[in-house]
Amino acid sequence: MKAALLKKTGPSEEFRDNIIIEDVPVPEIKDNEVLINIKFAALNHRDVWIAKGAYPKINLPVVLGSDCSGIVHTARSAASTFKPGDEVIINPGFNWGSNEDYQSKDFKILGMPDNGTLAEFISVSQSYIYKKPSHLNFTQAAGIPLTGITAYRALFKKALLKKGDNLLIPGIGGGVSSSALVFAVSTGANVYVTSGSEDKIKKAVSLGAKGGANYKNENWDKEIMEMSGNNINVVIDGEGGDTFSKCMELISDGGRIVCYGSTSGRTSNIPMARLFWKQLKIYGSTMGSPDDFTEMVNFINDNKIVPVIDEVFPLENISEAFLRMSEGRQFGKIIVAVDS
Amino acid sequence: MKAALLKKTGPSEEFRDNIIIEDVPVPEIKDNEVLINIKFAALNHRDVWIAKGAYPKINLPVVLGSDCSGIVHTARSAASTFKPGDEVIINPGFNWGSNEDYQSKDFKILGMPDNGTLAEFISVSQSYIYKKPSHLNFTQAAGIPLTGITAYRALFKKALLKKGDNLLIPGIGGGVSSSALVFAVSTGANVYVTSGSEDKIKKAVSLGAKGGANYKNENWDKEIMEMSGNNINVVIDGEGGDTFSKCMELISDGGRIVCYGSTSGRTSNIPMARLFWKQLKIYGSTMGSPDDFTEMVNFINDNKIVPVIDEVFPLENISEAFLRMSEGRQFGKIIVAVDS
Repeated sequence: MKAALLKKTGPSEEFRDNIIIEDVPVPEIKDNEVLINIKFAALNHRDVWIAKGAYPKINLPVVLGSDCSGIVHTARSAASTFKPGDEVIINPGFNWGSNEDYQSKDFKILGMPDNGTLAEFISVSQSYIYKKPSHLNFTQAAGIPLTGITAYRALFKKALLKKGDNLLIPGIGGGVSSSALVFAVSTGANVYVTSGSEDKIKKAVSLGAKGGANYKNENWDKEIMEMSGNNINVVIDGEGGDTFSKCMELISDGGRIVCYGSTSGRTSNIPMARLFWKQLKIYGSTMGSPDDFTEMVNFINDNKIVPVIDEVFPLENISEAFLRMSEGRQFGKIIVAVDS
Repeated sequence: MKAALLKKTGPSEEFRDNIIIEDVPVPEIKDNEVLINIKFAALNHRDVWIAKGAYPKINLPVVLGSDCSGIVHTARSAASTFKPGDEVIINPGFNWGSNEDYQSKDFKILGMPDNGTLAEFISVSQSYIYKKPSHLNFTQAAGIPLTGITAYRALFKKALLKKGDNLLIPGIGGGVSSSALVFAVSTGANVYVTSGSEDKIKKAVSLGAKGGANYKNENWDKEIMEMSGNNINVVIDGEGGDTFSKCMELISDGGRIVCYGSTSGRTSNIPMARLFWKQLKIYGSTMGSPDDFTEMVNFINDNKIVPVIDEVFPLENISEAFLRMSEGRQFGKIIVAVDS
């Protein structure tokens, strides 16, 4: 089968040399596993960080990719829930463990150390396989898993987002933030965004955001306060850094902030007096449990949610897909057509 | 009546000149108010900060003091819940408002701007008056209100502390931390403390703490981890600063951190990756609602909790009491005998 192999880590200029399409054996099917013919995969920041070597314990060569949509090819057990031809997606969070509050030490994400979805076939335990939502095509469905589960847990299991909440999503455009946008709009929350790109703000508004501010403008926080009637009561942040501190300043009393990442690194100058005097709640969140994944798929089906798709690349152009994500040019999911 | 008046703000060397005992009129009793003859008052850091001028909007002269125990002298309304001779304490958090999650903009703490408890009489709305727990003498009861409600809300309404939790209280000795210690021990939590004083650590252990580490030792966090079996899952912190960051490093996955103050100021270098990867929950908390106060008094009665008393000063020596708190020499509540 064809697979995109990461042979060597390095800066983005080397992606073309380091990520190579090769012919490799179709994976063996182990007990309780199901062999899936992958139609589309999707990239995540995680893949780019691994390709750059900015991740602990990278083993090479490896097939990256955590997300996919596909068709069941072979189910090993006769008692399998799935049969050949079923249209499916995969929950890429393996070995979550028994505690809903946090993942176990054995938790791992599909696509390093185990081979991932940038290949024509993958064999995974049927416990991680879910029916593809029928209102979505394979391209759209491939955009759901990793960022969808992260956004779902952050919004609904941590921030307990509900209709009428005023939600700020700083740095719109990535997979989690664009999933959070469509999930939150569907819930009836009033969503505000920031971005360094006017086009991304416009796109967010076209997807249902009430408004947005350009964070290159020093007064972006005042703009957000004005357009929200001085009331942002929920923030879903993946940036960290100064954005996080500023969100603690602008958020309303009793507000909830979820941090799902920190692309801007450590946060300095945290205004502790805001934290206690405003009775804030700050939740860290990453990925989600199998229960969260089930709930998310139900939510997507019930509300006919369509993930935001940025661009579709053929597998042969995989290094360009990585480059686009590395440069942060996308809005929504970058999709890879593996065997479409 | 005798009252300790703050005439002027200034550094601790000036407390003796700035906090003066004078004869002032007994307060008028307004509608629904009850006139209380104060037996004992207690100091809080708030009083010292105000005396030093480190507080917004200080109006002078003012009678400081948020805490007291006393005896009802006159109840204005015949329909009053209280009658002369009743032994009472006061909830010093006024105008909390209708939202349990956070205080209203009108919230204020007794003792600036309104005259407080360092006087022989005070007149307050009966809605803030509670029966003194009968197992406590007046000295002990005066130590309950402000720090008790703060510790209670932080532990039980935010961290949801329960039996078997491993709780770290950094910087033991203050009013909130010593209240948190006795509340948590009574709940069956395993309590660990830090202090810069070996005597305070010993005192904490004598009150039921499992152990403590001296924070002047650079490896205090490793010591705490060792004595707790590498499992601190709750932190109640009033320091902020580097302590807060270090607590985010040492706390277990899914851990809960409550911040009720920041004596060390803003926190730098927050490890955001710990926040999301460990799925931490961080709660800001200050004071508590009337419902919290009612629950706290019930908790103290049901569990026969005795607040930790540091030292009792006669009202005439009020500046020495302020000095002791300013220098952080106390363990537990500094009490002032007003009319005992």
